[in-house]
Amino acid sequence: MMETPRLLINLKTYAQSSGERAVEIARQAERAWKETGVLIAVAPSLVDLRTVALGVEIPVYSQHVDPLDPGAHTGHVPAELVKEAGATGSLINHSERQVGLHHIGEAISKLRKLGLSSIVCAPTPGESAAVAALSPDAVAIEPPELIGTGIPVSKAKPGIVQDSLKAVVDVNPDVDLLCGAGITSGEDVAAAIRLGSYGVLVASAVAKSPRPYEKIRELTAPFVDLTRA
Amino acid sequence: MMETPRLLINLKTYAQSSGERAVEIARQAERAWKETGVLIAVAPSLVDLRTVALGVEIPVYSQHVDPLDPGAHTGHVPAELVKEAGATGSLINHSERQVGLHHIGEAISKLRKLGLSSIVCAPTPGESAAVAALSPDAVAIEPPELIGTGIPVSKAKPGIVQDSLKAVVDVNPDVDLLCGAGITSGEDVAAAIRLGSYGVLVASAVAKSPRPYEKIRELTAPFVDLTRA
Amino acid sequence: MMETPRLLINLKTYAQSSGERAVEIARQAERAWKETGVLIAVAPSLVDLRTVALGVEIPVYSQHVDPLDPGAHTGHVPAELVKEAGATGSLINHSERQVGLHHIGEAISKLRKLGLSSIVCAPTPGESAAVAALSPDAVAIEPPELIGTGIPVSKAKPGIVQDSLKAVVDVNPDVDLLCGAGITSGEDVAAAIRLGSYGVLVASAVAKSPRPYEKIRELTAPFVDLTRA
Amino acid sequence: MMETPRLLINLKTYAQSSGERAVEIARQAERAWKETGVLIAVAPSLVDLRTVALGVEIPVYSQHVDPLDPGAHTGHVPAELVKEAGATGSLINHSERQVGLHHIGEAISKLRKLGLSSIVCAPTPGESAAVAALSPDAVAIEPPELIGTGIPVSKAKPGIVQDSLKAVVDVNPDVDLLCGAGITSGEDVAAAIRLGSYGVLVASAVAKSPRPYEKIRELTAPFVDLTRA
Repeated sequence: MMETPRLLINLKTYAQSSGERAVEIARQAERAWKETGVLIAVAPSLVDLRTVALGVEIPVYSQHVDPLDPGAHTGHVPAELVKEAGATGSLINHSERQVGLHHIGEAISKLRKLGLSSIVCAPTPGESAAVAALSPDAVAIEPPELIGTGIPVSKAKPGIVQDSLKAVVDVNPDVDLLCGAGITSGEDVAAAIRLGSYGVLVASAVAKSPRPYEKIRELTAPFVDLTRA
Repeated sequence: MMETPRLLINLKTYAQSSGERAVEIARQAERAWKETGVLIAVAPSLVDLRTVALGVEIPVYSQHVDPLDPGAHTGHVPAELVKEAGATGSLINHSERQVGLHHIGEAISKLRKLGLSSIVCAPTPGESAAVAALSPDAVAIEPPELIGTGIPVSKAKPGIVQDSLKAVVDVNPDVDLLCGAGITSGEDVAAAIRLGSYGVLVASAVAKSPRPYEKIRELTAPFVDLTRA
Repeated sequence: MMETPRLLINLKTYAQSSGERAVEIARQAERAWKETGVLIAVAPSLVDLRTVALGVEIPVYSQHVDPLDPGAHTGHVPAELVKEAGATGSLINHSERQVGLHHIGEAISKLRKLGLSSIVCAPTPGESAAVAALSPDAVAIEPPELIGTGIPVSKAKPGIVQDSLKAVVDVNPDVDLLCGAGITSGEDVAAAIRLGSYGVLVASAVAKSPRPYEKIRELTAPFVDLTRA
Repeated sequence: MMETPRLLINLKTYAQSSGERAVEIARQAERAWKETGVLIAVAPSLVDLRTVALGVEIPVYSQHVDPLDPGAHTGHVPAELVKEAGATGSLINHSERQVGLHHIGEAISKLRKLGLSSIVCAPTPGESAAVAALSPDAVAIEPPELIGTGIPVSKAKPGIVQDSLKAVVDVNPDVDLLCGAGITSGEDVAAAIRLGSYGVLVASAVAKSPRPYEKIRELTAPFVDLTRA
């Protein structure tokens, strides 16, 4: 089974993190991983997926996947193509790309069969538990109202993280919990860890940073301490 | 809390079960309920909801609900309007009207706050468990490939019913399990009950029947026996 | 062919214009029509459609329609059911309920076959022309950024109305142009007429008014003058 | 302005035309273009877009584009990223990836601003005319019921091609008409040309062919004759 990353960097479709810049940020994440031993992954845009996957050794996730077999589907993203492009797994149901419950269930199954990892986003403890029942590799709890705000869920709504963790564990203790939305500093990451998060999901904090490498190092530092402890 | 119906008749948008015919079938369901004591509900089309709710005493469900507050929403179905129209609750995520995971979670919450019942459809044991984590009043397991076939899930795929029941109970024992798809006879209903279903969800078997009352009586009979046992 | 209304009141799903209140506003519109001779129509929520249609003689429009034949469709709104409920026609593609191009084309055809009227919303001159090519009865031009603002398109963006009118006429001169978004006063209506609108589409100005009848009279006044001129 | 291709090969997401195979087929198309002078383009899957664009000189189209600016959009395909990946333009509204009318209008505008070409699919003459009003570079008429059947629209429904051509020309004579669905042989292409098509859109005939180069040569032959005539 694929190991869940401690830090998953969603590059979204920012100009600052697309094309050549996507590969560059991924290389800096790879360097940070080699230096710290903390597993870091990136999720580039769909059109950057293959180039990034070719360029680095760290895990690369698709931002979206369609639970369709390869075939007569125009403009879609079957899991087989995600794998063929060199990805390690896929995000599913990000709040900016929500899908139906059945889509989530089928996508998790498809990815699992192909040996790929699934990380499903959910905005509430209840929906995190619902997703956990479908046995993805990880659930990423992201209250949409905090995405992109710089207000970390681990501070603004610590109860959501704790409740989600409890809800997920109750339903399926094998599912890792990532904490997302608003995480911009090492301090935010440390708070998320204290609340029980396995890892964190970040986007703009790294993708739009003038110095991505330094930011990645800052965000991974609390995991290094964790490992040493 | 609203009692979950043993027999829920989805009238869909068949010509044979719309308009005046919707009210008529609902009245026959009401008669069967009065005679047998088995709780029967109907889910008429959105435009028939109010008329049917006005015409009968049995529970009436909306076929769909949007988790939106009343307001500037054109062509939508807020739960408050469903309630105002006289409905008892709503189906959510029918395979013919699938919605996102967040939609399901929000709709259940909305209905609960308004004192309305929620019955969420799901096609697999895993998705039934996922839905159960969101605490609806009931889950209706309906493998889409059997809908409208006349091949009852309780016979074609008894394992799905049993697995769903187990999965739902594990996650949330307070959620009732309905068994849908392909149920057309009293025998099918009896099989569903033996597998652990609380009730059944039917559509064409009643909606397209030349003699709906007789069909309803046939489908409720196994529940009468159950009550007597 | 159905005559296009000069004033179409979209009741949306406001608490103030749902249920009994929907019927009441429709009756006040009917009274204004009888007194002025200006054709007024209302578009109540889906669950109020039949009750409103039963209660008044003026045209009643559905807020949405699905281009599906009656049948195994749960939670949908086939045109046949819209007709059976007593409606005169339907809005299509309101900015709050957007649909695919094919949906628009099929819905217009379906409504036409059933003798019902189609009024399709579009936000720009280009899209108004596109819609006109599908030969609906009318196009309602509504820049989404003005909806609900109280800033009338006829004042904020008079060029859009004129360009839309020209674009529609070039493609299909038989299609009426309604002007929507932000219209709240008789003055706004007069401006829309001067720009070449056949009629207007309003919502909150009437639906949320403490005195709907007076507001309706105010909004129809410019059409009375038009008729007399 | 970008020249519209005479032959546009949609590689969809077939296993036979993904990854390395996508590049290979694109190279064979490039070879046929060099040998015949007939402009050929390919539309690879989203994850293959950049690799194919890097590998060939012929035009490469995205299978889908989202009318969003680069930014906080997960799992989407902004036109800027399509351009950055090296594409020449994009298909829009393929019947397997239908989008709203507003999406079509905005996507065409976006592509045009970026100097990219837009080819919009439509299933009927009316919808072809509607699309033409939005001024894309080309409309591809594809009756969905013929897609993948091997029954060419130019034979099964020649009237649709002629009516579409007339409808498109009436609305906007600058828009090229491509004929798609069911085209598998040079004879089908010749029939499409006789009916007035500027070019053709094919998929499985090439993508699933054991000898794509020969098939491409066969399909381009009628255009060579056209040029010579």
